[in-house]
Amino acid sequence: MFKKVLVANRGEIAVRIIRSLKELGIKSVAIYSDVDRESLHVQLADEAVCVGTARPQASYLNMKNILSAAVGTGAEAIHPGFGFLSENSQFVEMCEACGITFIGPKSETIDLMGNKANAREQMRASGVPVIPGSEGFVDNTDDARKIANKVGYPILLKAAAGGGGKGIRRVDNEEKLQSNFEEAQQEAIVSFGDSRMYLEKIMEDVKHIEVQIFRDKQGNAVYFPERDCSVQRNKQKVIEESPCELITEEQRNFLGKIAVKAANAIDYVNTGTIEFLMDKEHNFYFMEMNTRIQVEHTVTEMVTSIDLVKAQVSVAAGEELPFKQADIHCQGHAIECRINAEDPAKNFAPSVGKVKYLYFPVGNLGMRIDSALYAGVKISPFYDSMVAKVIALGNDRNEAIQKIKRLLNEMLIDGITTNQAFHLALLDDDTFKNGRVTTDYLEKSFLPRWKKED
Amino acid sequence: MFKKVLVANRGEIAVRIIRSLKELGIKSVAIYSDVDRESLHVQLADEAVCVGTARPQASYLNMKNILSAAVGTGAEAIHPGFGFLSENSQFVEMCEACGITFIGPKSETIDLMGNKANAREQMRASGVPVIPGSEGFVDNTDDARKIANKVGYPILLKAAAGGGGKGIRRVDNEEKLQSNFEEAQQEAIVSFGDSRMYLEKIMEDVKHIEVQIFRDKQGNAVYFPERDCSVQRNKQKVIEESPCELITEEQRNFLGKIAVKAANAIDYVNTGTIEFLMDKEHNFYFMEMNTRIQVEHTVTEMVTSIDLVKAQVSVAAGEELPFKQADIHCQGHAIECRINAEDPAKNFAPSVGKVKYLYFPVGNLGMRIDSALYAGVKISPFYDSMVAKVIALGNDRNEAIQKIKRLLNEMLIDGITTNQAFHLALLDDDTFKNGRVTTDYLEKSFLPRWKKED
Repeated sequence: MFKKVLVANRGEIAVRIIRSLKELGIKSVAIYSDVDRESLHVQLADEAVCVGTARPQASYLNMKNILSAAVGTGAEAIHPGFGFLSENSQFVEMCEACGITFIGPKSETIDLMGNKANAREQMRASGVPVIPGSEGFVDNTDDARKIANKVGYPILLKAAAGGGGKGIRRVDNEEKLQSNFEEAQQEAIVSFGDSRMYLEKIMEDVKHIEVQIFRDKQGNAVYFPERDCSVQRNKQKVIEESPCELITEEQRNFLGKIAVKAANAIDYVNTGTIEFLMDKEHNFYFMEMNTRIQVEHTVTEMVTSIDLVKAQVSVAAGEELPFKQADIHCQGHAIECRINAEDPAKNFAPSVGKVKYLYFPVGNLGMRIDSALYAGVKISPFYDSMVAKVIALGNDRNEAIQKIKRLLNEMLIDGITTNQAFHLALLDDDTFKNGRVTTDYLEKSFLPRWKKED
Repeated sequence: MFKKVLVANRGEIAVRIIRSLKELGIKSVAIYSDVDRESLHVQLADEAVCVGTARPQASYLNMKNILSAAVGTGAEAIHPGFGFLSENSQFVEMCEACGITFIGPKSETIDLMGNKANAREQMRASGVPVIPGSEGFVDNTDDARKIANKVGYPILLKAAAGGGGKGIRRVDNEEKLQSNFEEAQQEAIVSFGDSRMYLEKIMEDVKHIEVQIFRDKQGNAVYFPERDCSVQRNKQKVIEESPCELITEEQRNFLGKIAVKAANAIDYVNTGTIEFLMDKEHNFYFMEMNTRIQVEHTVTEMVTSIDLVKAQVSVAAGEELPFKQADIHCQGHAIECRINAEDPAKNFAPSVGKVKYLYFPVGNLGMRIDSALYAGVKISPFYDSMVAKVIALGNDRNEAIQKIKRLLNEMLIDGITTNQAFHLALLDDDTFKNGRVTTDYLEKSFLPRWKKED
């Protein structure tokens, strides 16, 4: 097992990883940007190295400085957390070149799943149902029209090499196809030097359901009970839960098995998550695969009592998975609310400042708050606005809702504005309480009503 | 189900009960003494009534004022917590007379188990092994001598009506029997107007093992996995855990079954705990029964995922137990450290003052802190010094130890002195790590060494 691991991240996920390392008896190295000097992850780690100035490119994305920190402190492995360098295959290769273990999948896997068109084809080849659309690439408007007529409008045109919203167009009907196709393709050539396009039907009134898998270097693979992450705003998850109440045991096993089959097909190592859309008839469609630990891994940990970060470290060190499929039971229901430093009344504008008073109400069963907050910490404008993950485990979904409401009602974060009250309103919403939220519910239905009432 | 419940307690247990009531959708009424006006339990409850001045007799033991508060606020039931009125049969009768449900056993049961000599005879009659000693009462020195010779010295002479340390004598050999017997009996007559004495062998090198039971009004009864509470100072528990690693599944079932048999024999209602001593050969001896929720119920909650306070409320309301024996599984290992406002370096003298800064490190899996602390709260000298219960659940005992060490290392309580560092020293002790601590280990072995090093 590793003696020392560098955590190439900040905020709650860095704290969360350092805590698991401590429990494993592994020394931890934190990295930080100059504005994060007093951050909790810096205080908790055994060592800490400043890797640059506040701007992410200068620090948390600064591969050379991070690798220097790892080499200089004698760290044998790097845990990337999520975001930043966690899905950067070049960084994985640089780690390998330095003889440092990257705690995550191989660089080829990250590349394969990072190209959304390739990932789609790979999944189709592995027998995973994908969103109706093109098979392979679409070269011209005529081909696009044929496929669009077959799957039905609205559709999404996407650059195969896409990213950052470039080369993407929504098309609502045939008249608008040609102009949009030409525009998007031109944008793709300019942005990526790659004219290849593909096409997907836009699925409406669907749930976001995802399945986390874990696979070791020996080829043992397992899946975890699904998560429902349908409560979203601007494609960002707001509330996540596990399991999804609407899904039957049969569907759970079906989803899990195709996820494991896909992981085996690409010789996946470590943990990753396959995201699906689920329609009203409970048909599942592959969306994408995240080749890292996710924010919402916590709800899976709560229902299974498995520390996924500890398992990541073991598997990266070459050990066999510390659990088999038969060891993974879903006990109870877990819900997570992402607490962001933002003002819902001002269109969720980020809030910065000093936390003057903090109260985390963590007594009783099934409560968890993953956070880098402490009384006195300053929230800077440079990074993601998520400041805490509030998680509750109940015997059933209703108890989990009661518990997390109790927790949010008692929690005090003074000095910055957060979406705490917004979450409380959401938890009281009938559609949420009935477990019927779909991915566009918040923006189409809840938010307009909520703004009016507010 | 009740609509409103009064919590006749203060501190962390009042907070803990109020939180469960909130999750059940039941309104809570707090009571408080004038010095507790700003306490967390007062802030969290839906209503709060001042029942007197600081001195416990004037407030938390003031039965009339508490019942007035219950009647005045329309509370249908009273949860007594532990300590204060929780084992006062007169209070139970007064509740009944007011038409208020006491959340706990019947007054006769409290009386029966409160008289330690009667409890011993009752348990023996139910087939529960008791500490070797007298059967029934001992009238004179001659009888005492015969029994003492049979069971072996040292022995403990106890007044049957005893309490508060009155009428109790340790006798190490036969020469000292007569004088001690006469003294103790005289003290018993003066203190309780009752000359009846009984006698027990003093068990040395034993573990404190206890089994919690739960029984509803319909007669359904279950037992929980045992707790090991052998880490004690001055007969006060310091660290508690569940399960006891030394006990086999067979012994667990044996203990559980005799505990349930005893509960059935006395028509016990609600939850209670039978305390045993366990010798090196794993023989068990009944010590006493606590007819209330205990401080350490939390470790049982952690390993079983059952909220015992919620179950207390349901059963008191006449519902059937919400779980059967087959639903109770022991998953993992839980450890609790009692954090007291006291100074171990000054012979554990109580510490009072204002909590200036507080940090509760509650992220990651299996962490729980039950506490009424918040930044700014004042710890007064009037009540018990326990200010927080820090609890960790691991997959096994070793992981639980690593987790609770991590938690104690990160936790900050500034402004008062606590036994936090003392706990960390204990958790690093080899005898503790091996799970071999017996009830006299702290005072006979650990403390003398620790004081020397300190």
